[in-house]
Amino acid sequence: MPLRLDSKAAGFAADFTALVDARREADEDVSRDVSAILKAVRAHGDTALADYTRRFDHHDLNVSGWAVDPADCRAALDGLSSELRDALELAAARITAYHEKQKPVDSDGIDAAGVRLGARWTAVDAAGLYVPGGRAAYPSSLLMNVIPAKVAGVQRIAMVTPTPKGEINPLVLAAAQIAGIEEIWRVGGAQAVASLAYGTDRIKPVDVITGPGNAWVAEAKRQLYGVVGIDMVAGPSEIVVVADDQNDADWIAADLLSQSEHDPTSQSILFTDDAAFADAVEQAVMRRLPLLSTQAVATTSWAANGAIILVRDLDEAMPLVDRLAPEHLELAVDDPDRYFAQVRHAGSVFLGRMTPEAVGDYVAGPNHVLPTGRRARFSSGLSVLDFMKRTSFLGLTPEAIRAIGPAAVALAEAEGLPAHAASVALRL
Amino acid sequence: MPLRLDSKAAGFAADFTALVDARREADEDVSRDVSAILKAVRAHGDTALADYTRRFDHHDLNVSGWAVDPADCRAALDGLSSELRDALELAAARITAYHEKQKPVDSDGIDAAGVRLGARWTAVDAAGLYVPGGRAAYPSSLLMNVIPAKVAGVQRIAMVTPTPKGEINPLVLAAAQIAGIEEIWRVGGAQAVASLAYGTDRIKPVDVITGPGNAWVAEAKRQLYGVVGIDMVAGPSEIVVVADDQNDADWIAADLLSQSEHDPTSQSILFTDDAAFADAVEQAVMRRLPLLSTQAVATTSWAANGAIILVRDLDEAMPLVDRLAPEHLELAVDDPDRYFAQVRHAGSVFLGRMTPEAVGDYVAGPNHVLPTGRRARFSSGLSVLDFMKRTSFLGLTPEAIRAIGPAAVALAEAEGLPAHAASVALRL
Repeated sequence: MPLRLDSKAAGFAADFTALVDARREADEDVSRDVSAILKAVRAHGDTALADYTRRFDHHDLNVSGWAVDPADCRAALDGLSSELRDALELAAARITAYHEKQKPVDSDGIDAAGVRLGARWTAVDAAGLYVPGGRAAYPSSLLMNVIPAKVAGVQRIAMVTPTPKGEINPLVLAAAQIAGIEEIWRVGGAQAVASLAYGTDRIKPVDVITGPGNAWVAEAKRQLYGVVGIDMVAGPSEIVVVADDQNDADWIAADLLSQSEHDPTSQSILFTDDAAFADAVEQAVMRRLPLLSTQAVATTSWAANGAIILVRDLDEAMPLVDRLAPEHLELAVDDPDRYFAQVRHAGSVFLGRMTPEAVGDYVAGPNHVLPTGRRARFSSGLSVLDFMKRTSFLGLTPEAIRAIGPAAVALAEAEGLPAHAASVALRL
Repeated sequence: MPLRLDSKAAGFAADFTALVDARREADEDVSRDVSAILKAVRAHGDTALADYTRRFDHHDLNVSGWAVDPADCRAALDGLSSELRDALELAAARITAYHEKQKPVDSDGIDAAGVRLGARWTAVDAAGLYVPGGRAAYPSSLLMNVIPAKVAGVQRIAMVTPTPKGEINPLVLAAAQIAGIEEIWRVGGAQAVASLAYGTDRIKPVDVITGPGNAWVAEAKRQLYGVVGIDMVAGPSEIVVVADDQNDADWIAADLLSQSEHDPTSQSILFTDDAAFADAVEQAVMRRLPLLSTQAVATTSWAANGAIILVRDLDEAMPLVDRLAPEHLELAVDDPDRYFAQVRHAGSVFLGRMTPEAVGDYVAGPNHVLPTGRRARFSSGLSVLDFMKRTSFLGLTPEAIRAIGPAAVALAEAEGLPAHAASVALRL
């Protein structure tokens, strides 16, 4: 049974705080294992990669092949139904269009003191993309990670993915073909992340690594942060739905279950101002669960992490939503902007009754790689900016250095840095 | 003696690669110590802070006071010479003006399929600033860290700084007054970073932590990345100067030494196409060193990490500069734009003969918190964006979901996620 809370009940404040603070992230002690793997790959390169792949994925890279043949990607795409191929192509086109608007603008100008000041953005040279094997190998995630890098102008994209017993998901290969990925290595786990960060004889190092993975992959990225850039540390997925009683309970139940079916650690929370609607949604969830091929996962997650919170009115819900800082927030009301104006912390917001979160997972355009675990308080979804960096620049004329140089000399002297002071004073 | 390389010499490629790969960052094994400190502060809060402060900073917070009295900041500012006060205020005004231009623009529009799509930026609620004690307590760094947060619109800024034996640098207090910081805690080290991330009874938690520190502080930030946002992992400072023979050797020598004097691990590298000019700069460095109060540090750093690289022409230098991806790059030539156009990886670029790097440290306007250790390949200087996050949003009409919904259903089914598919299909 999901948690039921009522904002009018005694003890609500404490109960809600407990919900906010509850940690759904596994405290798996993988840090030492990952350190050892990173060291081994750094020291032994491809030999270590082959060893780990034999051990964890049960195939020999020197027999099954290190890289995926581009012809296999073309064949996978050709093998799709035209409906699925069109869907992938629509998704790619819409994701591209949305991310094109994220491209930053350079600046270059001269201010009142005669100082030339500006900023120039450039793409990183190479990006690495981790794609999980097995059930979590989603073609949509591949598009969401690769397209921002392509839009940024990244010249080389190297994908790594484990192929347990040598097998690989053809949908992923088809998506790779649509995204224009030409370099795919059949390695996974922390060892694959290490190979992208440090480079090996076969795999050249990259500058940024993104993409979802298990606890070992996440910990490898965390440990390599600074050697390379990474996307945010990702945790279990979550959705908050704010809904009045004018919604169809079946729709809202499906929206809640669309998070619950991801993983047993996923979380779905409904805020509503109507107790009868809350009951209707709960019943609709129970009716839908048996219909799902993902029933086992969804049932576990809904029972363990689901919550229905009754509030006096929806305005009361908004500060509570902010404390949760959810990855996904649906505002299933007639006037979503009224409530959206009160939201400070959320990864992505879905406005109105006709905007289920799942359209954002696939085809709407915004990125579905979003901050989880309350990280929307300080971080953003994946974007073109994650694959670019900014170089600031300045240029002084003799007049400009006379205008601002003496202040620099005074500050350098006060900080006890005489060569700083001299480098300016000599030019005055 | 600094390293001397000549691009015409046999073995140059290998020697230059060794220079690029040389690690100047200490491999101090502080990770376990820091983990223990973070755990203690998380579990015991203020009690742990007081214990560590007694042990490391040799004063009792319950006697000397936990927080700096705002009156002390006002008094410190009043005690400055008018020259120094004017210099700090000029710096603050120019840094503010530059960062104002970094404020991102929201978007909100409806596309051809009738889908409303947008992005909204908001500031984080609270930022924490670490300011080192002792020699490295630079008022300029305080301004460079606080002003982007203020421009972003951050409502609460909490500063922490160790006050060994209870003492604090009045210049830092004066800068805090100018920057408008009202919350300053007399704690330092990994324990201070932990208190900002987790919160204690006295210190409320923040969302982002920035600011320089020693190896313990840097490791604490690295371990807490994900609990809070942090600025980039910072390493030793570095400068690359590209100069032809039309420069004053004394100026260039001072520029190189302005990095060398920071720390024994700092690095200064000159690229020039003229052997006689290279000699002149080296001699000018030797003449200036004895004049510096920072002579000991600068001499060590110049001898250990300095380099003078002779190239056939300055165009040859530019790909080499890119491999170094320097924090600071001076282009001391008549036509700096010609060379700047060839640069892909640098933190900040100083254009022309009249633009010493030190003006950027203090008063030019761009941030002096910049990526070091080749991290300009993938990261940027500190900016307003580090204190903001983006919420994407979308809204569908019945027509819009009919246009793009079926593709979402097809992809959800292909990925084996039936509740995702249902949440869209029910609305079609």
